[in-house]
Amino acid sequence: MHHLIKEIRHNPLLWLLACVPVVFSAHKLKPEAHTLHFVLSVLAIVPLAALLSHATESVAAKTGDAVGGLLNATLGNLTELVIALTALRAGQYMLVKASVAGAIVTNTLFMLGASFLLGGLKYHVQEYNRVSARLQAGLLFLATIALLIPSAIAKAELAAGATFTHKLSVGLAVLLIAAYALGMLFSLKTHRELFASAEHGEAGEAPWPMGLALGTLAGVTIMVALVSEVFVESVQEAAQSFGMTPAFVGFIVVALVGGAAEMASAFSGARKNRLDLSVGIALGSATQIALFVAPVLVLLSYVLGPAPMDLQFWPGAVVMIFLATMTASLVTNSGRSTWFVGVLLMMVYLIFAMTLYLLPPRSQ
Amino acid sequence: MHHLIKEIRHNPLLWLLACVPVVFSAHKLKPEAHTLHFVLSVLAIVPLAALLSHATESVAAKTGDAVGGLLNATLGNLTELVIALTALRAGQYMLVKASVAGAIVTNTLFMLGASFLLGGLKYHVQEYNRVSARLQAGLLFLATIALLIPSAIAKAELAAGATFTHKLSVGLAVLLIAAYALGMLFSLKTHRELFASAEHGEAGEAPWPMGLALGTLAGVTIMVALVSEVFVESVQEAAQSFGMTPAFVGFIVVALVGGAAEMASAFSGARKNRLDLSVGIALGSATQIALFVAPVLVLLSYVLGPAPMDLQFWPGAVVMIFLATMTASLVTNSGRSTWFVGVLLMMVYLIFAMTLYLLPPRSQ
Amino acid sequence: MHHLIKEIRHNPLLWLLACVPVVFSAHKLKPEAHTLHFVLSVLAIVPLAALLSHATESVAAKTGDAVGGLLNATLGNLTELVIALTALRAGQYMLVKASVAGAIVTNTLFMLGASFLLGGLKYHVQEYNRVSARLQAGLLFLATIALLIPSAIAKAELAAGATFTHKLSVGLAVLLIAAYALGMLFSLKTHRELFASAEHGEAGEAPWPMGLALGTLAGVTIMVALVSEVFVESVQEAAQSFGMTPAFVGFIVVALVGGAAEMASAFSGARKNRLDLSVGIALGSATQIALFVAPVLVLLSYVLGPAPMDLQFWPGAVVMIFLATMTASLVTNSGRSTWFVGVLLMMVYLIFAMTLYLLPPRSQ
Repeated sequence: MHHLIKEIRHNPLLWLLACVPVVFSAHKLKPEAHTLHFVLSVLAIVPLAALLSHATESVAAKTGDAVGGLLNATLGNLTELVIALTALRAGQYMLVKASVAGAIVTNTLFMLGASFLLGGLKYHVQEYNRVSARLQAGLLFLATIALLIPSAIAKAELAAGATFTHKLSVGLAVLLIAAYALGMLFSLKTHRELFASAEHGEAGEAPWPMGLALGTLAGVTIMVALVSEVFVESVQEAAQSFGMTPAFVGFIVVALVGGAAEMASAFSGARKNRLDLSVGIALGSATQIALFVAPVLVLLSYVLGPAPMDLQFWPGAVVMIFLATMTASLVTNSGRSTWFVGVLLMMVYLIFAMTLYLLPPRSQ
Repeated sequence: MHHLIKEIRHNPLLWLLACVPVVFSAHKLKPEAHTLHFVLSVLAIVPLAALLSHATESVAAKTGDAVGGLLNATLGNLTELVIALTALRAGQYMLVKASVAGAIVTNTLFMLGASFLLGGLKYHVQEYNRVSARLQAGLLFLATIALLIPSAIAKAELAAGATFTHKLSVGLAVLLIAAYALGMLFSLKTHRELFASAEHGEAGEAPWPMGLALGTLAGVTIMVALVSEVFVESVQEAAQSFGMTPAFVGFIVVALVGGAAEMASAFSGARKNRLDLSVGIALGSATQIALFVAPVLVLLSYVLGPAPMDLQFWPGAVVMIFLATMTASLVTNSGRSTWFVGVLLMMVYLIFAMTLYLLPPRSQ
Repeated sequence: MHHLIKEIRHNPLLWLLACVPVVFSAHKLKPEAHTLHFVLSVLAIVPLAALLSHATESVAAKTGDAVGGLLNATLGNLTELVIALTALRAGQYMLVKASVAGAIVTNTLFMLGASFLLGGLKYHVQEYNRVSARLQAGLLFLATIALLIPSAIAKAELAAGATFTHKLSVGLAVLLIAAYALGMLFSLKTHRELFASAEHGEAGEAPWPMGLALGTLAGVTIMVALVSEVFVESVQEAAQSFGMTPAFVGFIVVALVGGAAEMASAFSGARKNRLDLSVGIALGSATQIALFVAPVLVLLSYVLGPAPMDLQFWPGAVVMIFLATMTASLVTNSGRSTWFVGVLLMMVYLIFAMTLYLLPPRSQ
């Protein structure tokens, strides 16, 4: 237990944990204060995500490379998954899709771009393992194609109805999960030597003992689920009172909240000239959401949701995912980075964020 | 003649030649058995395509590099051309276009992907001449632009009528053939040293004597034409009875049937660690169909078809061609291959095949 | 003054300066002869653009690298800017947008392609600084995304009205100018050593003395503005009498006229095996128009134009800009060039030019 307390003392982000009980009280006592719920739940999710991420890594560190890699690859975006599941159960499919699309775009553009920029402000030129970046970019490209096809076909074929889209989405979900599993087989097993430098992980931070890690994993997941419920309930009305469009909230706000913990690690890696770590977190997280979280949500919607969810995204979101993947793929091709590469990525992200912010709320 | 018999004995694929007479008998005796005609004609086309391909290479081997390269480049996809011409004369333009689009996608994704996968299962990392792959990818990209423009403009401009599309298609056809001719001048003549290792061709198989080769070329082309007629006639009704959509048949089935012989060569090259051969066949074949077969069909439609054919493809097909070209271009950029690269390409192909299979038959 | 006369004697292009007074007389004496005005104004703009370009470089050469680079980067496309401003003041927004889109496409495809082709016909393989080409391609890609987003969203969202598009366009304009400024900071200041060989500029031509250069800059700008007025007034009617569509005129003719002087420099650089110079002029000019001229026009339209101009382009133009950027990005990836690379680029340009030429005039 003193590990946990030491961690909390050491990491100022975790002081925000105090918000967790406050959220629940506020939700009980002032059920109509949506904006307050929203702000408090955001502040509560950030430290919970950080704990979740550390607990996952601690379990991974104790279970050896293969199982550990597997664990990191499936639970690495647990926060995003839990938030999306909560929205799924509430039938808020637009929010689920916006948050999936937003997480992909935010990780490939903002997290990667800010890492390059922060690193580049300190080091003249930085290098990273481009084999690893290329694998992630390739997987992302595959996922982009899978997300693009239903919308492209639906646009071309008005006759193609909902049944077609649902069948196709289930098929695509299965393919994406299979590709993700094969990608892990490739990078963790058959060709692991190619990915060497990216595998150091979070060295420096001592892993927790197994019991504490597993307990934290279970306990915090439940807490994230509970806070997510408040978050999902309040997000739309709070957004309106802030003057933000629903598209902007789903795409930008949820993605930034869900990924805050990973961003902290990615940025600190970049400042320590360990760009492999940053690129791995940013692209790995985007890949995981595209090839694991999104398909799992589609499949789970048959069990948990009020109706099946498909993979047909809003055309504007598809364009953004496609452009984000193209940008990341062009940019990581060389394996070198300077501050200006970060600026380029952030600019693309700013273009998207601004477009979504200005979009009239009636549309999408 | 004993060359031909030796070849047939040596190559179990050629035993399927027995289907050729059976097709014609079945067509005469049971004119309504469409499914039977379809299956038999598929089985008959595969070995004929293999003979055609060997005969073309034998003539090419005897006539020296320049003429031989030219021959390979024009007759290498003779099977596809003859099938498409038969469909063209029957006025089945949708089938013609679907088979052209399908051949490009199948060669760049399935043939290339399966080669990488089969090679990668045997060898840890394989290398190939990336200058050659880049030239093909560049030509393919040009063709993709040419196929994309009429659809993109037609979508943007409802006022742009059929006359515009037809004039544009003829102009594009001429440009593509010119680009193809200049590409040959470049790779066979002015900069041939850059393409060195890709030019070994089918070493190992002894070329036939000239007379036999020319005779086979002429005779088998006629046979392919006759079998194609049965194939084109039966394909739509057979597809329906198999529960396949017309789009799936044109895109996937016709492309796999027409390219079976080349696939056999490409796969065997990959297993022998001669990946230059596989990449050359796969991308070369796709390039040839995009820059030679398709434009020739447009121009011939003015002479042979009931009405002129244009280059305006179904938007879904254009998206698939574009994505296939992008994927091939990203993947072949490095000149190295592992099994997972093959998986990625095959997955993209599976996404397309599944989409077309599920597409309701009324659309497209 | 004798510098100016020497320059005119030395450069046969400048003999066309004789057309300048003829334009004005013709415009006064025969106010209805639109075709004549058009031809004469084209012939007059070309030498004026050449003078402007030499004057800018002379000032740049005298003011040191940083200020000089800044000057070149802002005034390098002064001719295009003045023509577009004239059209803007006349409220001809379609012409403004077409000329901006056309200049980007013409510079990335025609100017770059013809440079590669002309250089490649003389030298077997040419090399150039690919870091510099990549920076330009990256900036162009960013601009393409900015130009693409308003059209993509407007297509997806019918509810998104004019207010949204205008607000978004102003925001995008500010972002693009910021990215352009940061790009200069990167290439002229923080990482200038990466761009070394591209910075030789127009060595060989002696710069003019400061006074003459500044005087020429001021005087010729005014002349270009005056001739542009005749040009903009006459271009549509002249186009009709030549059988050219308005889209073709804006995209192809205006872009070729405005860029004639830079093309002369780029082509001569390629023939002297100084491909860095050619690539720098072609991509640099495209980047400048996309990230500086276009946004400046949007912002100035609030002051000068009869109504605000947005960045929402005709979808066909967006497709062409996107494909041109993709092509340039794929092609310049390797840092090597042969004649065939030039052919590929020119072919893409020909496809676009032909499409626009054949497009029925009612549309667009």
